[in-house]
Amino acid sequence: MAIAILTVGGTIDKDYFDALSEYQITESPIHELLHTFNVNFDYQVIPVMKKDSLDMTDEDRSKVRDIINTLEQKLVLVTHGTDTMAQTAQALEGISDKTIVLTGAMKPARFKDTDAVFNIGFALGALRTLQQGVYLAMNGEIFAPGNVIKNRSAHRFEQIS
Amino acid sequence: MAIAILTVGGTIDKDYFDALSEYQITESPIHELLHTFNVNFDYQVIPVMKKDSLDMTDEDRSKVRDIINTLEQKLVLVTHGTDTMAQTAQALEGISDKTIVLTGAMKPARFKDTDAVFNIGFALGALRTLQQGVYLAMNGEIFAPGNVIKNRSAHRFEQIS
Amino acid sequence: MAIAILTVGGTIDKDYFDALSEYQITESPIHELLHTFNVNFDYQVIPVMKKDSLDMTDEDRSKVRDIINTLEQKLVLVTHGTDTMAQTAQALEGISDKTIVLTGAMKPARFKDTDAVFNIGFALGALRTLQQGVYLAMNGEIFAPGNVIKNRSAHRFEQIS
Amino acid sequence: MAIAILTVGGTIDKDYFDALSEYQITESPIHELLHTFNVNFDYQVIPVMKKDSLDMTDEDRSKVRDIINTLEQKLVLVTHGTDTMAQTAQALEGISDKTIVLTGAMKPARFKDTDAVFNIGFALGALRTLQQGVYLAMNGEIFAPGNVIKNRSAHRFEQIS
Repeated sequence: MAIAILTVGGTIDKDYFDALSEYQITESPIHELLHTFNVNFDYQVIPVMKKDSLDMTDEDRSKVRDIINTLEQKLVLVTHGTDTMAQTAQALEGISDKTIVLTGAMKPARFKDTDAVFNIGFALGALRTLQQGVYLAMNGEIFAPGNVIKNRSAHRFEQIS
Repeated sequence: MAIAILTVGGTIDKDYFDALSEYQITESPIHELLHTFNVNFDYQVIPVMKKDSLDMTDEDRSKVRDIINTLEQKLVLVTHGTDTMAQTAQALEGISDKTIVLTGAMKPARFKDTDAVFNIGFALGALRTLQQGVYLAMNGEIFAPGNVIKNRSAHRFEQIS
Repeated sequence: MAIAILTVGGTIDKDYFDALSEYQITESPIHELLHTFNVNFDYQVIPVMKKDSLDMTDEDRSKVRDIINTLEQKLVLVTHGTDTMAQTAQALEGISDKTIVLTGAMKPARFKDTDAVFNIGFALGALRTLQQGVYLAMNGEIFAPGNVIKNRSAHRFEQIS
Repeated sequence: MAIAILTVGGTIDKDYFDALSEYQITESPIHELLHTFNVNFDYQVIPVMKKDSLDMTDEDRSKVRDIINTLEQKLVLVTHGTDTMAQTAQALEGISDKTIVLTGAMKPARFKDTDAVFNIGFALGALRTLQQGVYLAMNGEIFAPGNVIKNRSAHRFEQIS
């Protein structure tokens, strides 16, 4: 079953550049990762934007929604910054006939102790089995868009109630 | 929701010992991994055995089945060697009232390019969402116990038909 | 033979904090690294400051010099940011009776593709064998303080002439 | 200054093959490692053999010696299995006009917690600065060929007296 993977930026894709002593969002390492894990399904990586999620606008979210609406694939993974992932998830609700899972990372995928690989694995495992709808997959939990907050001090996503 | 994690050995848990110039199955690194990823669910790691899966006997499989039958948890992850994972999955069919997912790795979790972290993530994502039954989760696919083979030369699991 | 290891900050010690969406200099991971490599010599890690090397002042350099002057150890490794490493090396010239080697990294030690481990190994190998004096050890080369520049675009240190 | 790097096998070059459920010596990853670290010197990697060092014969050691004798380079790094590294070092004594440093690893370079990268860095740092002769560089120490043993239980090399 074919999967579309949209990358919109966020911590997961950050690299470190010494020349400026600042990090920047670069090409997503997801293609290289999935190749290493020798996954058995067809997928297409669609780079949409490279934004810190705090900088994402309503227009950006409309763009993501429009792209998903045009996809042939029924299964969609979105890698996203964590700060506004829930907001984007809410903006994607109501898309018919698709299962959409958003995930990201607290540590860039290029770190030794990154959570990116686990989160991508977890999100794909959920994506393969969930019914149509929009979900967040973080910290080994699956959340509904309107029922999740990022607990910054605990470095994890939690259910609201 | 609480998850039981049974470790029975296999490549995923192999370390390398120079003194003997051989690898050996050691304590599973799964607890350390899940701690690093800051997972949000309750889990219990239950070390059952440390066997290369080619060495697993019918008695070993009965033991795994008996332990699962006594568990309070409804969700069970089994980390297992890849060579006879499908055989063990078949031996676990018919356990009522549980969702059981088996996974493992082609490269030990202690390798830089291991598939263990992705596979554990994927298996847990599937475990959270699948209905009762027994499944294999490998290479980004979910398989039924009787409908999967390990393709040794391609280093991956594939559906039989 | 005992070695003193002074950490003053720089890229080598940077971690990433999602809550702030930025990299910051943290506790140096050097002690943990040397433990992993099972080194056979006595060493003492002395955290001096946690500065991006562009922020280091003449006063900071005097402080480093003063600390080195009081050390019992004859062999001194300094982990330092790359941008002003050469300047600090020059400020340490003339300390009598010590071999001092400065090193650092272009990618933080916490990255998968860091150069930190190689550079620390290389610097220590040089430190054990060099005569008294002050040296930079970067990119597999040993440099004299006044005869080296950081080539930013090539991400490496080079001899001036 | 140009460096010749001879690879003769050993733990440092071992990979794990699931199809066989065993570790085997493969192409040395040293070229890829040195590329990642962006080293600034010319080097040539010369694959000599792929042997567990317990299997090395006097003939093998003569071959290594003969190759070194024909090299243009004055600086020679040999990556070697740890069990008979000292024996090979003794077989290389007396080669005139070269500095030769042998190193290896207790954990394969492909492991997350390998000592290979540190050891290669350390050996190269020593190689750049040592006088002519033959040396072992392991565990952050430089040893003379006849004055070192591998302490198996402590997983490290130690001076004899």
